[in-house]
Amino acid sequence: MDAFTLISRAQASYVRVIDDGPIEDWPEHFTDDAFYKVTTADNHRRGLPAGVIWANNKAMLRDRVSALKEANIYEPHAYRHLLGQPAILSEESETVTSETSFLVIRITGNGPTDVFASGRYLDEYSLAGGKALLTRRVVVCDSSRTDTLLVLPL
Amino acid sequence: MDAFTLISRAQASYVRVIDDGPIEDWPEHFTDDAFYKVTTADNHRRGLPAGVIWANNKAMLRDRVSALKEANIYEPHAYRHLLGQPAILSEESETVTSETSFLVIRITGNGPTDVFASGRYLDEYSLAGGKALLTRRVVVCDSSRTDTLLVLPL
Amino acid sequence: MDAFTLISRAQASYVRVIDDGPIEDWPEHFTDDAFYKVTTADNHRRGLPAGVIWANNKAMLRDRVSALKEANIYEPHAYRHLLGQPAILSEESETVTSETSFLVIRITGNGPTDVFASGRYLDEYSLAGGKALLTRRVVVCDSSRTDTLLVLPL
Repeated sequence: MDAFTLISRAQASYVRVIDDGPIEDWPEHFTDDAFYKVTTADNHRRGLPAGVIWANNKAMLRDRVSALKEANIYEPHAYRHLLGQPAILSEESETVTSETSFLVIRITGNGPTDVFASGRYLDEYSLAGGKALLTRRVVVCDSSRTDTLLVLPL
Repeated sequence: MDAFTLISRAQASYVRVIDDGPIEDWPEHFTDDAFYKVTTADNHRRGLPAGVIWANNKAMLRDRVSALKEANIYEPHAYRHLLGQPAILSEESETVTSETSFLVIRITGNGPTDVFASGRYLDEYSLAGGKALLTRRVVVCDSSRTDTLLVLPL
Repeated sequence: MDAFTLISRAQASYVRVIDDGPIEDWPEHFTDDAFYKVTTADNHRRGLPAGVIWANNKAMLRDRVSALKEANIYEPHAYRHLLGQPAILSEESETVTSETSFLVIRITGNGPTDVFASGRYLDEYSLAGGKALLTRRVVVCDSSRTDTLLVLPL
């Protein structure tokens, strides 16, 4: 399977566990020492290192899932991710970098469905073993209104 | 062609005939004895069997197209489906199960464009003959406001 | 690589340069004598030839980029394109026709994110040299409110 198809499949699985569960599988889309950051387009453009959310290994991502569940602020079935197709930027041996646009829709009980977040993933994937795992994901949110970014994984 | 690509192509064709016509081709994306149901996330989670819309063969889907056209409530070019990539859950011989997120946008004459529906397809595909046909599609809508779900195929 | 994957990759690259830059790379997704038109579903259905935007070679597309930059009305990072998967309609030697749905989200500084445009691309691709380049793209916008269509490439 080519890199494009492997990454497409991995992305589909990634958003599925966030939107429909089990959310515990979300960290399993990363390598053990993966880097993960959520930031805003404005901060990213200005080269500011600080992110809204930050992790540099899989254990931290698992902690984040536990925190979300304990705080009871993560509610599956209330969000829907839609991803664009990955733009493959480089392929070197088993390491592939790509960018992918995303859109997250929020579904409220009786109110309207609205656009919750949009942006792009700046990714580095390892394709070792015929499976695409994230070694690095920087989530760049288009909007700078970051208060709402803490309630679910992006 | 691999299962992912075959299913991706089938999905693209599926939404095209709904959004841009000919709507008569919509049932042709199913096998003769396919099962089709539209339900809500809430009903689906609670295991309630009843769906908003229900069919267990292709002839019923054709009847539905006729009914929509006669009632004049189906208006092509007024909706736009956007699908995520299929998450392949199992592949066994020529039978593949997958899940795919969807988003439907409604375009009104002079008013704003808004999000009409979102959710996911729980699918079983037959890949016999090098073509992906649905043997089963359960459409799980995120919102429980089902009154609006009757006006177009999902 | 099959036509579906080649076109999917080209589309991902196309929307990336519009949304995140460099916008100068947008014309490079077309062949030298490519035809490009933006029109509305209503005009397209009635067979009206006039389009909102029109070009019949790559140089005109480059001029358009220059004009947008000079007029300062193009602002990257303020829009986000989401594309559906391409529906392949015909494959003949190295020429492939396809249709793809699109959705464009507009991000405003402090206001809400909303749906800016939706519609479909009617495309003809050349796959010569193992790369998908547009020889023809007709952008059919769902809405007839065309005043807003002039601010960014679609």
